[in-house]
Amino acid sequence: MKKGYVHIYTGNGKGKTTASFGLALRASGAGLKVFIGQFVKGMFYSELNILPKIENITLKQYGQDCFIVNKPTENDIKIAKDGLNEIKEVLQSGKYDLVILDEANIALYYELFSTEELIDILKNRASKTEVVITGRKAPEKLIEYADLVTEMKEIKHYYTQGVQAREGIEK
Amino acid sequence: MKKGYVHIYTGNGKGKTTASFGLALRASGAGLKVFIGQFVKGMFYSELNILPKIENITLKQYGQDCFIVNKPTENDIKIAKDGLNEIKEVLQSGKYDLVILDEANIALYYELFSTEELIDILKNRASKTEVVITGRKAPEKLIEYADLVTEMKEIKHYYTQGVQAREGIEK
Repeated sequence: MKKGYVHIYTGNGKGKTTASFGLALRASGAGLKVFIGQFVKGMFYSELNILPKIENITLKQYGQDCFIVNKPTENDIKIAKDGLNEIKEVLQSGKYDLVILDEANIALYYELFSTEELIDILKNRASKTEVVITGRKAPEKLIEYADLVTEMKEIKHYYTQGVQAREGIEK
Repeated sequence: MKKGYVHIYTGNGKGKTTASFGLALRASGAGLKVFIGQFVKGMFYSELNILPKIENITLKQYGQDCFIVNKPTENDIKIAKDGLNEIKEVLQSGKYDLVILDEANIALYYELFSTEELIDILKNRASKTEVVITGRKAPEKLIEYADLVTEMKEIKHYYTQGVQAREGIEK
């Protein structure tokens, strides 16, 4: 029986979300079914023009159309918790080979739900389902639970040259 | 005038090539024109079923259908040098907004061409063209030249659990 593993892409460097989307592309190319749930993000990114058109890829957002500033609102928490409930079903259903929880680490950082809740859901997933979790500040308990962890480490960033987020590259 | 930057994704961790392909997806979604040149790789990856079908993305491989073992052959060197010549034209043409040189760091590691040659080509590119270079072991001179460098650092990998490369996830 095929076994799915849990990946984490974390760290301050550029490339976490894009790595998960590149993996979605590869999986889709192999005929695997992919579900992408984006936490915290409810805003538009250029990839949203393409991803939902690719065969075998489903994408849902569980966030508002602006980033959390300082402290999450009740609405931020509600949307994330509802999202997590949906993810629980997605993971148990066995309908997907790859499930990406984009920015779930940030949802944990803001305590929109707890690491224990998430790990519990991961433990109860269909065993074939591979899971990718992205976002800065992955909690230590989640890193312990995961099978593969990559830290995207910022060595040099052009933000320090004053470069703003650009369409097609950062958003 | 729009300015393009040079990114490097390097390190031992998983996520370098997929990060560049996720970026290709985002760029394509923004209507940008993308060229992907893959060095060293000439074998089939699942994403090759999808990427060339996406609007605005062109992909070419400059490698053989097996990895280099120990020492590159004359043929490995010839294919890579021909590829680099094509990339030179692609970068000068101004036809592309984003050019991805997948595994170019590995081509440099095997001395299929030199870091100086590559940097020279990068310096002579159309100024709007953003470039992404992937692969382990990015040379120090290239890191100095680049504007954005992310090290994909392996914190934990399931290879140590004996997991083999799987279709749709690793290939």
